[in-house]
Amino acid sequence: MSSYVDLGRLFRPKNIAIVGASSNLDSISGRPLKLLNRYNYKGGIFPVNPKYDSLHGFVCYPDVRSLPVSPDVVIIGVRANLVPDILEQCGEKNVPFVVIFSSGFAEADDPFLQEKIVSIAKKRNIRIVGPNCQGLVNFVDGVPLSFSASLDGEPLKPGNIAYVSQSGAFGFASFALSVDSGVNFRYVVTTGNQVDLDVVDFGRYIIEDKEVKLLILYLEGLEDGSKFLDLVQRAKEREIPVAVLKVGRSEVAKKAAKSHTAALTGDKAVWDAVFKQYGVISISDVEDIIDLGTIFSSPKRARGKNVAVLTTSGGAGIIMTDLLDDFGLEVPILSPEIQEKIKPYIPPFGSCLNPVDMTAQVINDPKGFPGCLDAVLECPDIDMVTVIISMITGESGRQMTEDLIAANKHTIKPINCSWLIDNKHGEAFLRQLKAEGIPLFQSLRRSAFALSALGKWNEVLSKPTTEIMVKGSPYLPNLPFMMTEYDSKRLLAYWGVPVTKERLCLSLEEALDASEEIGYPIALKVMSPQILHKTEAGAVALNLNGEEQIRNAYGRILENARKHCPDAQIEGVLVQEMVSDGLECMIGIKRDPIFGPIIVVGLGGIYVEVLKDVSMRRAPIDENMAYEMIGELKGYPLLAGARGQKRKDVKALAEVVSLVSKLACIENELEELDINPIFVLDEGKGVLVADALVLRKTKE
Amino acid sequence: MSSYVDLGRLFRPKNIAIVGASSNLDSISGRPLKLLNRYNYKGGIFPVNPKYDSLHGFVCYPDVRSLPVSPDVVIIGVRANLVPDILEQCGEKNVPFVVIFSSGFAEADDPFLQEKIVSIAKKRNIRIVGPNCQGLVNFVDGVPLSFSASLDGEPLKPGNIAYVSQSGAFGFASFALSVDSGVNFRYVVTTGNQVDLDVVDFGRYIIEDKEVKLLILYLEGLEDGSKFLDLVQRAKEREIPVAVLKVGRSEVAKKAAKSHTAALTGDKAVWDAVFKQYGVISISDVEDIIDLGTIFSSPKRARGKNVAVLTTSGGAGIIMTDLLDDFGLEVPILSPEIQEKIKPYIPPFGSCLNPVDMTAQVINDPKGFPGCLDAVLECPDIDMVTVIISMITGESGRQMTEDLIAANKHTIKPINCSWLIDNKHGEAFLRQLKAEGIPLFQSLRRSAFALSALGKWNEVLSKPTTEIMVKGSPYLPNLPFMMTEYDSKRLLAYWGVPVTKERLCLSLEEALDASEEIGYPIALKVMSPQILHKTEAGAVALNLNGEEQIRNAYGRILENARKHCPDAQIEGVLVQEMVSDGLECMIGIKRDPIFGPIIVVGLGGIYVEVLKDVSMRRAPIDENMAYEMIGELKGYPLLAGARGQKRKDVKALAEVVSLVSKLACIENELEELDINPIFVLDEGKGVLVADALVLRKTKE
Repeated sequence: MSSYVDLGRLFRPKNIAIVGASSNLDSISGRPLKLLNRYNYKGGIFPVNPKYDSLHGFVCYPDVRSLPVSPDVVIIGVRANLVPDILEQCGEKNVPFVVIFSSGFAEADDPFLQEKIVSIAKKRNIRIVGPNCQGLVNFVDGVPLSFSASLDGEPLKPGNIAYVSQSGAFGFASFALSVDSGVNFRYVVTTGNQVDLDVVDFGRYIIEDKEVKLLILYLEGLEDGSKFLDLVQRAKEREIPVAVLKVGRSEVAKKAAKSHTAALTGDKAVWDAVFKQYGVISISDVEDIIDLGTIFSSPKRARGKNVAVLTTSGGAGIIMTDLLDDFGLEVPILSPEIQEKIKPYIPPFGSCLNPVDMTAQVINDPKGFPGCLDAVLECPDIDMVTVIISMITGESGRQMTEDLIAANKHTIKPINCSWLIDNKHGEAFLRQLKAEGIPLFQSLRRSAFALSALGKWNEVLSKPTTEIMVKGSPYLPNLPFMMTEYDSKRLLAYWGVPVTKERLCLSLEEALDASEEIGYPIALKVMSPQILHKTEAGAVALNLNGEEQIRNAYGRILENARKHCPDAQIEGVLVQEMVSDGLECMIGIKRDPIFGPIIVVGLGGIYVEVLKDVSMRRAPIDENMAYEMIGELKGYPLLAGARGQKRKDVKALAEVVSLVSKLACIENELEELDINPIFVLDEGKGVLVADALVLRKTKE
Repeated sequence: MSSYVDLGRLFRPKNIAIVGASSNLDSISGRPLKLLNRYNYKGGIFPVNPKYDSLHGFVCYPDVRSLPVSPDVVIIGVRANLVPDILEQCGEKNVPFVVIFSSGFAEADDPFLQEKIVSIAKKRNIRIVGPNCQGLVNFVDGVPLSFSASLDGEPLKPGNIAYVSQSGAFGFASFALSVDSGVNFRYVVTTGNQVDLDVVDFGRYIIEDKEVKLLILYLEGLEDGSKFLDLVQRAKEREIPVAVLKVGRSEVAKKAAKSHTAALTGDKAVWDAVFKQYGVISISDVEDIIDLGTIFSSPKRARGKNVAVLTTSGGAGIIMTDLLDDFGLEVPILSPEIQEKIKPYIPPFGSCLNPVDMTAQVINDPKGFPGCLDAVLECPDIDMVTVIISMITGESGRQMTEDLIAANKHTIKPINCSWLIDNKHGEAFLRQLKAEGIPLFQSLRRSAFALSALGKWNEVLSKPTTEIMVKGSPYLPNLPFMMTEYDSKRLLAYWGVPVTKERLCLSLEEALDASEEIGYPIALKVMSPQILHKTEAGAVALNLNGEEQIRNAYGRILENARKHCPDAQIEGVLVQEMVSDGLECMIGIKRDPIFGPIIVVGLGGIYVEVLKDVSMRRAPIDENMAYEMIGELKGYPLLAGARGQKRKDVKALAEVVSLVSKLACIENELEELDINPIFVLDEGKGVLVADALVLRKTKE
């Protein structure tokens, strides 16, 4: 089990001090006191404010130093420039956690103040939540450490959804909307500038609570990709899905992200690839939070992707089927036996296929709806059931509500319901279904999205998390800092990647010897770390057959190279076997500042340059994952043998992709690697790297 | 102006008869009476039911024949098998319109009953709404001709959204949810089996009402694509956007569509292409209806795609920017002058760039929010403003509400608002904003979708609707019914499409002569209507240089052809010039059962076969549209001169694409045309068709 910060005393503090506590219980510094009271917090509450002797029945202290206890948490809601001194006092009192609401730190382009509090906290062993945050709430134990207006009103019932957001305003606003939609939360945390504890720390701690059924994170950036992925892996072990709202994707949004929290915003394609690879649910709106909160609050999980659609409106059933298809789920035609069971309840103008169009007439037979429902629930091919009810009102609506509740109690399969009805006619039914924990929607798209999250989560869980072994020591230090194709291929050859037969030659005679040895036809390429685009420089001659052609080409390409770049340091001429066969592909490594080496594979040439047809993963990956990557390429049929061609050696390509991903994790001086082309020969014949280039990290 | 069915007497009837009227006002046949009363319908109401003498104060008649008037509309809610006789009686009374609620017609696999009522209606000049529908409502004049429970309650205020749905259950359910969300409708119509009047007839009539600001259609199928497109074009003339929920896209859904209403469901790619070409807004959920209804109910329209985002939550601003980007809108950085105007109101940790992060502190200065709002509204680069407010409550919330309302009154630019707040704190503000007609959302994605609909609608309106002239008479009747490549190219040549130089030869000697005349190298191809895949049959020899090669090849390919297909009727050997240069593209025509000839263009070979990289439009199209199509191809950079290649003759390709689209409209016997490849030479050098095949409609 990976280690994590124990936040026990923060989430369940014995004593809480509130610095800057106000007599106005609706002000930012007054609300925490009000909320702690309202949530019936049992520990000690210590307001700190030199202006008062007592506050709402509590003794008020002039400063932290004067407190009679050492509180587990100190809430700080005063002006930013007062915070350093308060922290010093907290240090004297051995306070383990502070929650700083105050803004005016890094986000105000004044890094000095922020640095100051960070250094005091480090020195004094204080862990900081914030600054510029709206605090956190532990609903299980009734501990609100926040000033959010969304907590006004009756204390909220604890649920099993946890939500950690970098943004306080968005976090609590989306929380409030979700609560209105019936989602019950277990924890909500906002981290603001997160100078110390960040979203990932909180997530990591929270998933140790086995009652948590979904962890939602709002991220503006990440400093440490591995820490985040450790959290995701651990969550998977504990069968807790992780949904992430990652902001700052578009170029304009990136600029805003920088000015907003100085957060490091990654490359969208990399984030997408990593989310997919690690089974993170990617979300992008308040409603996604509501919908996932709704579906995962129910304890039921899907065993597959097959959905039965039961509907009183044929039209709505068809729309739902389209939407489920869009979201990657299946709506299989029911088996003849199940159709037989359903048939008696379906009027001739309905349908038993799936979607099961019961028509509104199903209400005429009290056994109709439960009969259909039971039949599809019993069907072993069906993993989930979605029920769509149109404007069924009154007694019929009440009956369907009861039938749904009864069926839901007797099945382990997820059932959700879209009841398309106005509030006036539907309120009572909807309230009852919600109370029974049946996930409820009034949008077919959102209902389909929620089911797809269940289906995909099952897929994530069923994939084993394989630890990928990466062994060996870096070879790059043995090679020149400025790498040529020749050097790059030596690196690849060292790791066992098949490269073209070749020899670096320093004279024409040597080149002629080498050509004889390698066998005609051959290619000549001038090697110089200054000439990376050799073809454009005229520093390459291909398909040379025999001595005379070599004699002609040798001098010419050297002259071209010198003309193209007079200062180029020329290391020799590479004599290389020609590869006449196979499909051109490319393999690349790109070091991402957050997630480290990212492995890229694609078909070569136009496929990469024009069509951007590539697939990526975070390195290292095993061969199975490499297969998966290759299979995702739009041009994959070309490798599999489209248009009457032989199938190519996809296995060998996958091996090399996995190998390259591993070497990238060991060669820590490697910044970029571009293998282009690698020829993929016919099945069984392997692959061959014809050109490659390594860029090393610039020395610091 | 295109013609349309005048539905005036249906929408504003002087007298209405209700056949099967029931004393139970909550039954299907009782509700129309209740609703007409509640909506204070001023015309005559005539219940028809032999069981009663009077019903709820109205004289009740035993049958239609006995009515003292000739009603404009007869509502029929009795068993299906009783309908034919009622129609006969309606005919006797010269009733122009009947609305048939009864189900049990075509959708029940009993076409005879349906045919019967159709034939009676035709003979008697009666127009039918339904059967199997839930009727219609004209809210402007207070005429409910429906039994939908969604109409219970206070009479609804007329708005300016019109909604016509084939499905009654889905139509009225989504209508009810939209009403709950504050959308006001002008007309709602459900058409059911539409044996006579269909969705398009209603849409076409409704858009003549200039108060309608959005027409929403729910379609399960279409019989006549041109009639639908006439409606769309006419709506554009009247500046009424058309949004269509077209169901039955996925394969499974298609099956359901057939069993549901026996409607003809088209090919998804064709629908998508046609929607795009004609500026139809494609939707797929209840919420889309709500969101479009919300945004188009406001009279404001956008002049471009540039959005200013004003937010109290930096995080929400970034998410919104991402979403606007996803939906194709722009969030431009504000000009320095505008930034200067905004700056005084923004704390140092906010942002003036766009998104404008006002931070929650904007509430501290009463001039802050209106100051920012006015500044971005004045900015000529900005076409729309979206305001995001997080949990701002109490007095500050009230103030922001007022500021928003004031700004909205003084600008012609669309403003919408996402207020992320729970109902308890926000209800009063949201109600007030809605009352002022400010489009309001609690989802950033839906808000972005609504703005994108405004932006795209502006684009649709700014594109001129050009009438495309198609002249000429069909040439196909002059060609054999079973077409070879040679025949197909003769057709193309007749229309002026450049094809390879070639001659059909009946002997080796003739072939030798032809080769000399055309010039080496040449290709030989056996022409037979039975051998369409010539290469697979070995019936082609390419790149032949000189007499000897021709002598060798001629016999061989004929022999191969005969072996491949012993019964093939061989029409000769085609001697054809070889095209050595240019990029391979393809042009196709596919006759869609709904929309007629569809023109397809793509790059040849793998681009079409493996990558499915094609672009399509409904024919005919002009050259500008052809350019647009070509530019949409993912492989377009190859034509434009990627990877150091010369730019290809895109103009010539566009000319031919347009030409082919036009000939397809005249050659009405043409079922399919496949030009593959057409070589696109370097710029200025034209294009050349190297292979083509026409399939003609099978004779009926």
